[in-house]
Amino acid sequence: MVTLSEINNYKDLKNLDDKNLKELCNSIREEIITVVSNNGGHLSSSLGAVELIVSLLKVFDPEKDKIIFDVGHQSYAYKILTGRKDKFKTLRQWGGISGFPNPSESHLDHYIGGHSSISISAALGYAKARDLLGQNHHVVAVIGDGALINGVALEALNNIKETKSKVILILNDNKMSINQCVGGFADHLAKLSVHPAYTKLKKIIKEHCKSLPKGDSIEKKISHLKHSIKHFLQPANMFEELGISYWGPFDGHNLQEMETIFTLATKYDRSLLIHVVTQKGKGVPYAEEKPEKYHGVSPAKKEKNKECYNIEWSSKSWSEALAETTLNLAQNDPRIVCLTAGMKEGSKLHKFHETFPDRFFDVGIAEEHMLSFAAGLAAGGLKPIVSIYSTFLQRALDQLVIDIAMQKLPVVIAVDRAGLVGEDGPTHHGLFDVCWGRSIPGLNIMAPRDLMELEYMLKGSLNKNEPCMIRFPKGTAPLRVGRGSIYGTPWGNGILLEKGQEWAIITYGTGLVTAYEACTLAREKGLPEPSIFDVRFIKPLDTESIKKLLSDHVTIIVIEESYKAGGLGEAICDIAATEGFPVKLKSISIQDQFVPHGSRQDQLKACNLTAEEVVKLYLAN
Amino acid sequence: MVTLSEINNYKDLKNLDDKNLKELCNSIREEIITVVSNNGGHLSSSLGAVELIVSLLKVFDPEKDKIIFDVGHQSYAYKILTGRKDKFKTLRQWGGISGFPNPSESHLDHYIGGHSSISISAALGYAKARDLLGQNHHVVAVIGDGALINGVALEALNNIKETKSKVILILNDNKMSINQCVGGFADHLAKLSVHPAYTKLKKIIKEHCKSLPKGDSIEKKISHLKHSIKHFLQPANMFEELGISYWGPFDGHNLQEMETIFTLATKYDRSLLIHVVTQKGKGVPYAEEKPEKYHGVSPAKKEKNKECYNIEWSSKSWSEALAETTLNLAQNDPRIVCLTAGMKEGSKLHKFHETFPDRFFDVGIAEEHMLSFAAGLAAGGLKPIVSIYSTFLQRALDQLVIDIAMQKLPVVIAVDRAGLVGEDGPTHHGLFDVCWGRSIPGLNIMAPRDLMELEYMLKGSLNKNEPCMIRFPKGTAPLRVGRGSIYGTPWGNGILLEKGQEWAIITYGTGLVTAYEACTLAREKGLPEPSIFDVRFIKPLDTESIKKLLSDHVTIIVIEESYKAGGLGEAICDIAATEGFPVKLKSISIQDQFVPHGSRQDQLKACNLTAEEVVKLYLAN
Repeated sequence: MVTLSEINNYKDLKNLDDKNLKELCNSIREEIITVVSNNGGHLSSSLGAVELIVSLLKVFDPEKDKIIFDVGHQSYAYKILTGRKDKFKTLRQWGGISGFPNPSESHLDHYIGGHSSISISAALGYAKARDLLGQNHHVVAVIGDGALINGVALEALNNIKETKSKVILILNDNKMSINQCVGGFADHLAKLSVHPAYTKLKKIIKEHCKSLPKGDSIEKKISHLKHSIKHFLQPANMFEELGISYWGPFDGHNLQEMETIFTLATKYDRSLLIHVVTQKGKGVPYAEEKPEKYHGVSPAKKEKNKECYNIEWSSKSWSEALAETTLNLAQNDPRIVCLTAGMKEGSKLHKFHETFPDRFFDVGIAEEHMLSFAAGLAAGGLKPIVSIYSTFLQRALDQLVIDIAMQKLPVVIAVDRAGLVGEDGPTHHGLFDVCWGRSIPGLNIMAPRDLMELEYMLKGSLNKNEPCMIRFPKGTAPLRVGRGSIYGTPWGNGILLEKGQEWAIITYGTGLVTAYEACTLAREKGLPEPSIFDVRFIKPLDTESIKKLLSDHVTIIVIEESYKAGGLGEAICDIAATEGFPVKLKSISIQDQFVPHGSRQDQLKACNLTAEEVVKLYLAN
Repeated sequence: MVTLSEINNYKDLKNLDDKNLKELCNSIREEIITVVSNNGGHLSSSLGAVELIVSLLKVFDPEKDKIIFDVGHQSYAYKILTGRKDKFKTLRQWGGISGFPNPSESHLDHYIGGHSSISISAALGYAKARDLLGQNHHVVAVIGDGALINGVALEALNNIKETKSKVILILNDNKMSINQCVGGFADHLAKLSVHPAYTKLKKIIKEHCKSLPKGDSIEKKISHLKHSIKHFLQPANMFEELGISYWGPFDGHNLQEMETIFTLATKYDRSLLIHVVTQKGKGVPYAEEKPEKYHGVSPAKKEKNKECYNIEWSSKSWSEALAETTLNLAQNDPRIVCLTAGMKEGSKLHKFHETFPDRFFDVGIAEEHMLSFAAGLAAGGLKPIVSIYSTFLQRALDQLVIDIAMQKLPVVIAVDRAGLVGEDGPTHHGLFDVCWGRSIPGLNIMAPRDLMELEYMLKGSLNKNEPCMIRFPKGTAPLRVGRGSIYGTPWGNGILLEKGQEWAIITYGTGLVTAYEACTLAREKGLPEPSIFDVRFIKPLDTESIKKLLSDHVTIIVIEESYKAGGLGEAICDIAATEGFPVKLKSISIQDQFVPHGSRQDQLKACNLTAEEVVKLYLAN
């Protein structure tokens, strides 16, 4: 029996027969399950793509051909077979290998794959460069059905014909993006999958390929095949309409069939899409049954929140709390509706969906559309709450500016996964929303420090009748940070949670945890304890309170889990410098770097967002 | 003969017969031509849509129905007929009416229409709100063929079926976006336009509608018609595939035909797309012939650049200079390629296109795809220069971060129309690129002050082998600002252009003009003249030189044509405050507002970006 241990890398695949390859696939699956169970990661999609990747690596040579994985969390088998077998156990760990394709990790990862739907554009770029530079290799994009409906992928599909450079698109259709593929395009794909004309076409292709001839005679076969394809293309097919040949659907777990088809594709003279149907979670009964549940798997060892003075932890995640509060508020106001872009599971919105199916909209991975749609809902008199990860909000910035802020529409954007996100790494951090949001006129930006604030801010935002953005991090939410009550602190004001001496920490959101830890550390070291000020509202800023802090303290330290450029720290420096406060001002924030994957604790430490650094900075003054 | 002068608003249309309506359309055209010739504006598309808008306003009532214009520069006739006839002569002027639909201007403008392709999403939002709130009105989106291929529009098309709320889409197909519609989708539309099945379908619809019955019997007709439509829908039709009924194509200048079809559409029970073919520039021979030339028309009176000490003006626009320099550099380096998203004319790239057709890519209005495509080109070994307006770069921020910056790919982004853009107004200003760009790790951001710098920076960026962004404004470029030579100033360093006393101005790009004007004004007033420092590179910043300025001067004024939050001013305050310089620091930049349309001079004045304000600020210290 062939197992992974007998294989060095993809070059060994050519020595294996079908039976061996199947055994190898099982062995790869076992390795993926072992590592993901321990480290966390994307299980369902990676298990579904094992045969696809093995077949790709039998036909294409990544040393010269370019293979671009769209949303690369399907690519674990690729990593294992391209020189990272031994390091695979470090998946998603600090210093270990990334959960997504990453060219800086291996020259065989040809393009970064974190956010979805860019693979077709990237492939077109690679292909056009190849043609202009007179090179001769294949460019393959592997894209999921969920990713295909995002705007950038559709723009690229539209542009293929015009570009005139051949790309091979492999549509890995597992009938869902993260939980369920939505929209007209999905229906179209489903229709193609069962249409008799395509069954016939498939049969013809298979027959032609049974014994693939070598050399010249293959050209004739292909010419003949093209004719047959044309003849049988009766059903409406959007790919063909866009000038892209459509081949499929094929069984994405049938190694021989895929090898044949991919080989044929290398000989074909124009851009084509090969529709391959796979099963998410393949090979693992529980994952096959509930693939959305095993889309993202948490690491076995969960990071525990440290006990800290004046912080009481809840057992809920921020996402759960947001979803629960949204549902509660919606019970009493029929105008509240809730939107997600393919993140129903991650955002814990299934209960809202069940309770108010008519008031819940999962638009699929289509963030731009979601924000304009939300603006339309608000213009029409509803109160939309958009649940979106900070990193994916980057996809819809223009809509946030023009559709929402410029029209002053009361859309509430619940920005989940703001700050460092741990194992998913640099493509998934939420480090831009504060910097970018601050410059958008009329946008309210706030960050709750605990669950009480979250509820207060969500309620308040819904009543505010203006564009509001509420940002909160990944992970467990504190039940209470600092004072147990926000009553008496008006909307828009910051709050002085601790009155210390000599120095003050100004911060928001997760920065409060660091602040309290620093406070505890200062006490342990016999140093003066800092004042702790939660700005609560990052925009507009409570300038008066900040001025008072600047004049009442010798040293101010700003802490924020966000990029420095454009962040709160700079805003406070602006007040200090233009008003001429003679205070010592320091800030700890994310510097000009993409923070690597690893645990959140690793990342916070690497970015100096720790109590130790805060105290050190205070002492350095 | 009926002319515009006899019509109050759209409500009077119902009293006019076909002949009268045609006369009215001519009269509206005359008014548009007169005003646009004087004020500047969008001529071709507005002329093409006159009959379409008259027909819309005969059938729909904007007091209750919602009509959303996608890229609203086609909507001048709508403005004229919805209560803004007399104010139309103030089109695009400061305090006058906007060149785009604007809900804050009229409650009959139901959605802002500045950036393209959001109308379908917005319409879906309005329609869903209508259904949930139990209202009963029509929602219509009017979208151009060029706008239809942008990602957000395609995402929305995909989502229509799922949304289950009826929208009426009117595809205003003038066979081009701004110059020429590109891609597979355009070909598909063209094919639909001539397909015999559709000619037959059209005939059937027409026959059914010849004498539209009133009341109940119309339902029967429609049911019968639906059957006929199904029967004749033989050709592949992407809209039908997405679950959207397709009717068309119809003549967008035939008032009777459109009125009939729109009336029928109000009775239809599901979402549909009405394909209407219009001619850009209709009614004006020179505009019909070269519609792309008359897409945007400049005002008759051009703003003149004031003469100013140490500034020598060229006769070239920044766009022309960028295009020319790009072309020159491309002559000597076959790896240089150039990209635009539907802005070949505006960006003056036709000569590049003619000279290097294989190295020029107009992807249509598809900014996200363009940036990922450029990243792919760079990954494949080419040197892409992306020409894009600052305002449209907002559409592709995520691609700038992940595809380009995170992969450290050598893509040069030439950011045109950075800063205030004058008459196009708030949707088109380029005020975010600096604020947002500063937080993107590893991105180089620079702003040339004159043509010499532009060439230096473009050359340097191509050699730098890193992501680079070069921002420049609308309008005429100075040949020389300050010193005549940049030699001796290393890449990345700022330059002290004038050595003054006591106070210094720190700025970049257009701020230099204001700085020199302030310098002249100070001299006239007998005040000490300021030092003038051009940072040149906004990121990374020449911190050492700035520290020297901060310690050498009593007062520092930062000028920038960009939002304050996240801008250079805050970056300098950060240096001053954290390093403890006891300098008086002030900045003039755009505050938290959307700056209205008008001339650039009006806008600069409204934002205090004038020499007078600079001197006043200096004196106030």
